[in-house]
Amino acid sequence: MNKKNNLKVAVIGATGIVGRELIEILAQRKFPTKSLSLFASKNSMGEVFSFKGESLIVKELLEINDIDSDTDIAFFAVSAKIAKKFVEPLSKKGVFCIDKSSAFREKENAKLIVPEVNAELLKNFHTRIIASPNCIAVPLVQVLKPLHDAFGLLKVLVSTYQAVSGAGKEGSDELESQVRDLFNFKKPAINIFDKRIAFNLLSFINEEEEKVINETKKILKLPNLLMDVTCVRVPIFNGHSMAVNLSFENPSNISQVMKLLSQLPHIKLVDEPTPLEASGKDETYVGRIRLNGALKNGLSLFICSDNLRTGAALNAVKIAETIFTQKDL
Amino acid sequence: MNKKNNLKVAVIGATGIVGRELIEILAQRKFPTKSLSLFASKNSMGEVFSFKGESLIVKELLEINDIDSDTDIAFFAVSAKIAKKFVEPLSKKGVFCIDKSSAFREKENAKLIVPEVNAELLKNFHTRIIASPNCIAVPLVQVLKPLHDAFGLLKVLVSTYQAVSGAGKEGSDELESQVRDLFNFKKPAINIFDKRIAFNLLSFINEEEEKVINETKKILKLPNLLMDVTCVRVPIFNGHSMAVNLSFENPSNISQVMKLLSQLPHIKLVDEPTPLEASGKDETYVGRIRLNGALKNGLSLFICSDNLRTGAALNAVKIAETIFTQKDL
Repeated sequence: MNKKNNLKVAVIGATGIVGRELIEILAQRKFPTKSLSLFASKNSMGEVFSFKGESLIVKELLEINDIDSDTDIAFFAVSAKIAKKFVEPLSKKGVFCIDKSSAFREKENAKLIVPEVNAELLKNFHTRIIASPNCIAVPLVQVLKPLHDAFGLLKVLVSTYQAVSGAGKEGSDELESQVRDLFNFKKPAINIFDKRIAFNLLSFINEEEEKVINETKKILKLPNLLMDVTCVRVPIFNGHSMAVNLSFENPSNISQVMKLLSQLPHIKLVDEPTPLEASGKDETYVGRIRLNGALKNGLSLFICSDNLRTGAALNAVKIAETIFTQKDL
Repeated sequence: MNKKNNLKVAVIGATGIVGRELIEILAQRKFPTKSLSLFASKNSMGEVFSFKGESLIVKELLEINDIDSDTDIAFFAVSAKIAKKFVEPLSKKGVFCIDKSSAFREKENAKLIVPEVNAELLKNFHTRIIASPNCIAVPLVQVLKPLHDAFGLLKVLVSTYQAVSGAGKEGSDELESQVRDLFNFKKPAINIFDKRIAFNLLSFINEEEEKVINETKKILKLPNLLMDVTCVRVPIFNGHSMAVNLSFENPSNISQVMKLLSQLPHIKLVDEPTPLEASGKDETYVGRIRLNGALKNGLSLFICSDNLRTGAALNAVKIAETIFTQKDL
């Protein structure tokens, strides 16, 4: 495919928390759109977005024919259930489908892509389905890949601190309303999460640990990597964090690691990263880098990133940019 | 020393967040007090506590002679700086000093005690200074000791989720006022913590990781234990949590581990522990128990406990109970 500068784009799930971020990023990065069509469920139909000076009205997506078949690229920011219904038939019409859900991440007929890590898989491939990984896996592999290339990864142990926005707008709304209720001496209602999340944490996130492990191994092409992950939901609106313990074949030292990571434009080195700083930023924040004496050639570090942006919408847009700018594609 | 049922007790730092918890626990557990004297700094002087039907007035502690020298036991719930000033001279007068600060934890002339783990050190010892460990170390060693005895600990990797009450009343006040400010569209003031804690986390707690590592090794009598700890402050009022990855000499299985831990009265097994459930409870909550394939004979689990209670005040009271009920002492 040649470089194309006037793309016909669709966003499915435009009014969701990741969909909104996607539309914002397309505008910020001056993504070369000829047209942008926005789709959502019936509830959000008719909502108006301003995009590059135009007013765009959100349409209801009922069936595959609602999306023009000459669309170049469709971003899916919907649940795995809805993605499963539309992505495959649309891709067969020749539309590049970039899906943020888990529906196709482990499928043979799809590619699982973090452009900074495995963009080469987008060359000469026979599917038009590209999955964007889990919002923990994206920043994790961004950091692990250069370290693996330099020192040879043996083990990865991760404990996460995941924001409520990872559970969608409903997740954020639930934290907000529970905090308000508690500060007004009312009993907080529990709807989205299993237990109260305000000023509490949940030590289990359904299916999340398997996703992080499987996707990390797949993207790094290390099926035998030794990994253990504990996924925890914390009362933070936005920005996922993780404490990471690593073991390598070869010894590293802190200045080598810092130099390696500081050269990467998508990584920002800081002393003590926080999700608040990383929120709204494109970069994955990395800090607390230190040797870990408990593991062979061990290294510990702390990662924060915007789960809606770096971990989802921005990764999807970067995938689209790669597809339409790679010469050999 | 013989069992004694009418003890003259002092609490130094009575009006602090741990001091209040201590007084409450002394009453709840019917600690055999003959008298209770409460001390604090000038600011809190004159505050009145109700204890076993009596009204007790908090006195200012200016010099060592303010504490009667026939006091049997003095609980110190103050900073390391203040503990350093009073504990040693008071202990030389024959008063058992139980200190929750870090001042004496690594000192030769003091014992570092978690009664469920190393109460035997309270027999026939020549010092009257007993330090209560860091609020992460207490629940950690409670869980590690029985597992070490059964399977032989090799490695301990911990990521913590620590509540703001660990930084005292000022820490709790700061989270509360920052949340109020944010919900009222005001810029939150930052005083106690380095950065905003409301809906954020801090990926470093000063000196905390060293304390947890040194104290855990000392209490378990495993100076060569391989340990790495990442201490993180989260926007939770009370209750510390930790994700723990363990490696053992011998293989364990989940049902063995569950059986072992379920027999201990100070441990409560649940599927997915939360700090909210553990807060206000005496037990250390343990859950998410699963094999960890990334470590040799690996095991992962999640621990929550009340940092003011289990991790501080209750441990101090249990130390006192042990001293005055152990026959051989």
